[in-house]
Amino acid sequence: MNANLAAWSQLRLRPHVLRDVSTVSTATTLLGESLPTPFLVAPMAYQRLAHPDGERATAAGAAAAGVPVISSTQASVSLEETAAAVPEAPRWFQLYVHRDRGYAAELVHRAAAAGYRALVLTVDIAAYGNRLREVRNQFKLPPWLEIANAAGRFAYDPDDPTSIPIHFDPGLTPAVIGWLRELEGLPVVVKGVLRGDDAVACVDAGASAVIVSNHGGRQLDTAVATADALPEIVAAVGGRAEVYVDGGIRRGTDVLKALALGARAVLVGRPIIWGLTTGAAAGVQATLDALRVELERAMMLCGAPIVADLTPDLVVR
Amino acid sequence: MNANLAAWSQLRLRPHVLRDVSTVSTATTLLGESLPTPFLVAPMAYQRLAHPDGERATAAGAAAAGVPVISSTQASVSLEETAAAVPEAPRWFQLYVHRDRGYAAELVHRAAAAGYRALVLTVDIAAYGNRLREVRNQFKLPPWLEIANAAGRFAYDPDDPTSIPIHFDPGLTPAVIGWLRELEGLPVVVKGVLRGDDAVACVDAGASAVIVSNHGGRQLDTAVATADALPEIVAAVGGRAEVYVDGGIRRGTDVLKALALGARAVLVGRPIIWGLTTGAAAGVQATLDALRVELERAMMLCGAPIVADLTPDLVVR
Amino acid sequence: MNANLAAWSQLRLRPHVLRDVSTVSTATTLLGESLPTPFLVAPMAYQRLAHPDGERATAAGAAAAGVPVISSTQASVSLEETAAAVPEAPRWFQLYVHRDRGYAAELVHRAAAAGYRALVLTVDIAAYGNRLREVRNQFKLPPWLEIANAAGRFAYDPDDPTSIPIHFDPGLTPAVIGWLRELEGLPVVVKGVLRGDDAVACVDAGASAVIVSNHGGRQLDTAVATADALPEIVAAVGGRAEVYVDGGIRRGTDVLKALALGARAVLVGRPIIWGLTTGAAAGVQATLDALRVELERAMMLCGAPIVADLTPDLVVR
Amino acid sequence: MNANLAAWSQLRLRPHVLRDVSTVSTATTLLGESLPTPFLVAPMAYQRLAHPDGERATAAGAAAAGVPVISSTQASVSLEETAAAVPEAPRWFQLYVHRDRGYAAELVHRAAAAGYRALVLTVDIAAYGNRLREVRNQFKLPPWLEIANAAGRFAYDPDDPTSIPIHFDPGLTPAVIGWLRELEGLPVVVKGVLRGDDAVACVDAGASAVIVSNHGGRQLDTAVATADALPEIVAAVGGRAEVYVDGGIRRGTDVLKALALGARAVLVGRPIIWGLTTGAAAGVQATLDALRVELERAMMLCGAPIVADLTPDLVVR
Repeated sequence: MNANLAAWSQLRLRPHVLRDVSTVSTATTLLGESLPTPFLVAPMAYQRLAHPDGERATAAGAAAAGVPVISSTQASVSLEETAAAVPEAPRWFQLYVHRDRGYAAELVHRAAAAGYRALVLTVDIAAYGNRLREVRNQFKLPPWLEIANAAGRFAYDPDDPTSIPIHFDPGLTPAVIGWLRELEGLPVVVKGVLRGDDAVACVDAGASAVIVSNHGGRQLDTAVATADALPEIVAAVGGRAEVYVDGGIRRGTDVLKALALGARAVLVGRPIIWGLTTGAAAGVQATLDALRVELERAMMLCGAPIVADLTPDLVVR
Repeated sequence: MNANLAAWSQLRLRPHVLRDVSTVSTATTLLGESLPTPFLVAPMAYQRLAHPDGERATAAGAAAAGVPVISSTQASVSLEETAAAVPEAPRWFQLYVHRDRGYAAELVHRAAAAGYRALVLTVDIAAYGNRLREVRNQFKLPPWLEIANAAGRFAYDPDDPTSIPIHFDPGLTPAVIGWLRELEGLPVVVKGVLRGDDAVACVDAGASAVIVSNHGGRQLDTAVATADALPEIVAAVGGRAEVYVDGGIRRGTDVLKALALGARAVLVGRPIIWGLTTGAAAGVQATLDALRVELERAMMLCGAPIVADLTPDLVVR
Repeated sequence: MNANLAAWSQLRLRPHVLRDVSTVSTATTLLGESLPTPFLVAPMAYQRLAHPDGERATAAGAAAAGVPVISSTQASVSLEETAAAVPEAPRWFQLYVHRDRGYAAELVHRAAAAGYRALVLTVDIAAYGNRLREVRNQFKLPPWLEIANAAGRFAYDPDDPTSIPIHFDPGLTPAVIGWLRELEGLPVVVKGVLRGDDAVACVDAGASAVIVSNHGGRQLDTAVATADALPEIVAAVGGRAEVYVDGGIRRGTDVLKALALGARAVLVGRPIIWGLTTGAAAGVQATLDALRVELERAMMLCGAPIVADLTPDLVVR
Repeated sequence: MNANLAAWSQLRLRPHVLRDVSTVSTATTLLGESLPTPFLVAPMAYQRLAHPDGERATAAGAAAAGVPVISSTQASVSLEETAAAVPEAPRWFQLYVHRDRGYAAELVHRAAAAGYRALVLTVDIAAYGNRLREVRNQFKLPPWLEIANAAGRFAYDPDDPTSIPIHFDPGLTPAVIGWLRELEGLPVVVKGVLRGDDAVACVDAGASAVIVSNHGGRQLDTAVATADALPEIVAAVGGRAEVYVDGGIRRGTDVLKALALGARAVLVGRPIIWGLTTGAAAGVQATLDALRVELERAMMLCGAPIVADLTPDLVVR
């Protein structure tokens, strides 16, 4: 995680001056949908650990800020309840593909029925990382918390968080992308790509976008930082699909750098949880609004009134 | 700010020996005017916060040291009063161009009338930086302090420093340079350039000099350090205009490195405020004299008796 | 030692995703022998300092984990006793060649007779390093500890550890490799190589493998880190012999990086002593098993189900 | 100073193995004279501050170790007394050339008469460095200490150390080398060179050797480290003169690196003062002997039995 943060900080900005920035706009489109900002709320499990309203509050706050939320397979509020909380807002569904493909398909059908507009397939979970912090903290799911989407479809031990990911299929190949796409026609976004060749394989298999991610640094120790992997992947994809990035995005200048390097959007994770914990939906909205204001300011100071002006020459290593 | 300081320190010197340095001279010319040192006093707002005599004392100290002072639009002593304090000394006027162009033009006319010899146009203020230190310190203007040049021409809230820059025009383009030049025929120096292409655009639009500056690191977080940006800008300008630099200049060796990399002068900021605070005009003069002595010593130890001997090969990264 | 650790950490991983890792295998062959993991237990002297059972327990634990142990010339349990403890397990013998070549030959004959399958010739001991830690700790051999293989064949002062290596021959050349090989026909592995040209000389002289090692950083101060030297040696050897590496291997990702850079095996040292100290044979086995599990997880997360999939492109500096 | 130390440490060694190092020799020649080690005792002023016997004890200790001492113009024991203390030992004389050339010539004649075999001309003293440590410590010469070689030939204020170097000539050019050489026919060694072009100019003017030195980091702040400047100077001189180096040499591996990079000798400074302070002549000898033993060990561990085997490929950055 620290490597992700450091990688953004070490990029230096080369701002333009004397460009007319009387008006500035952070608007963009993601998967063809017009959005006010290039932000997505990252999929995060068990949000009721942070606040009793959990994913419901996150979705409400994100909707108020105009930011699509990516609902997690491992959510502590079911995908249908989350959808009901923000029926009009854009929202995507994050999928761990279980060994039990029937359950995976069922989740896709439920997501489509509940109005989710894209599937975010997490692919960096072929094994469960050695999360020493979780071990040291003796992390357990409290009795009152449930994996709301599971509904008894698979067994796990709440006292042992590692009993859940063993149900995930370690045998996935790019073919799963086409299979998912066929189920309901939803676009598939592949999350967890760190190499250009893998990104190309995903696009060839039908992915509409890839997310450059190392799972917040919690899966594979010393994996390359996402800011370092991003340019290679943008170059390899060559505009055939959208590229997003997550990991260590904390400030408006981080977002600006990501976009300048070719990302079309950033996923925001931990800051959302901080906002959720301290202010429920309003806290989430305030976090996203503050990030938008920072991005606007950074764009003005870089002489870039629209996101299309964020070009690679604004950044130097 | 720390990045600016570090960038100068990380440059290593490759001194010459066995050059005759019996006499050493820091003399140079800036905009055609002969000066004893390649120093300028950077424009800084609200100097009466540091000492009751404020800009008047700074101007007097600089004049005694033979260094032109750049009077700020945001000064706490009016440009006319400052001029009256040092009627014979070279002085330049720093300009923030307000949305109210009438006010901007008025300032230029007043500056010309008061004998200022150049206009320093600050261009890195398209938005007001997110100055966390000011926020944490709850920085406010004290009741007795006024923006002396404003004279009621625009409204602001002394308790909210951000209420001032919203009057600055975020729609400036290089065309403003020609407009300013036409008003009174004063040479225009553009302050806040960090890229070669922008510097060329300024020179094409009529600028007589550009100042490589990132506003002391207070405007855009993680902007490139000025020592790192300088060589690109010197190369791009190619002698068509003068290039100055500010940011983190603290010692004689910093000045020597800046000149070796192609700057014709350096702007000195914080050390002036330290001198002003501790010794009024005499403190400012002592600061500038000490810096001159350090520069002379560094030139002698580098085997460079005159500033023209300060060539890029003296510096290595 | 710290440089060795840092060098592995600074290598970043570029994991593959969407590769079928339903089954993963760490199996390999070393010197033609099939083994469950690419691990070797490094030769370490005086293991009875760590646990009363010393080398016997280490050998038992390693055998239980399926890892060959490299028994040290300086062991505190004789090579025959160690062999008797694990009669079926693969084991190699580490050799310091004494000035008294008769004694060296005698050790080789005894090792062959006791079923050791390879000779590991340590070559980075031409002088005894200036081990300031040993000096500061006033390191001495306790009275009850003996160099079990020596059996009175040479004199030394237990109070002065430097009295032992003066018996080692500082005049060795690559010719010693052929001489050793001839004695009993055992393959010779040269330990302590840090340069490609030296590795080639060893292979030309008949070495079956070389071990990239700087003696845990204790011999020559500021020697190049083994992770940095490895690629050069792999390239120089060009597949004509096997290449192993030691120094700072602590985690599964370290092993994965070593293999990706072309090592066929890693030697594990200090972690073995920690396991031995805390749990005798079971502790050694647990250490090696944990490292295997970590390697399996790292391979899954890198999309590499077998060791042949560990290619250099997985690693970036 | 710290930069000098760090530069040596950051060089990594690539040792050879399996080279016959049964015998190892640090012997070399300097200016045609055979010597047991590639060491010189650096010229250092005012050694009676460290020990009552001062330069006499240093010369005696160096002679016992077989190392030439370089006696300083600023010594607290006269050059004649030092010579009398070690009449048979090789010794060189360090010269600051005063504005009063008559005094400079007088020193050369005295040095020749007293059997000094080379002149070491210090050239990095065109101005006196801004030695903040000396200022902070209020460094003064104690009343009982005199500049023994001066003998009333010039006036200075013992309370102000900067009153001495103002007598040194800042107008020196390479022509001074020929002038010095002519006076008594002694070879001239130029101390304080940090650039290849300057080294060539010295050799063209008749220098027999140059010393890569930044005056222990005390003269010009942020001057390039001597370990970094050395290769350029060795390449530029191309064997036409000898090249020595000082600055931060503390361990045998530092010496080995300097020699591998092309230096023919190293000057040892501070460690000598430590030895002098703690043990007078015996302390100086012990320091030099320990350094020799360290160098021998490092040479053995690098597979280099003689100094001619110390080639650039042993070192990597």
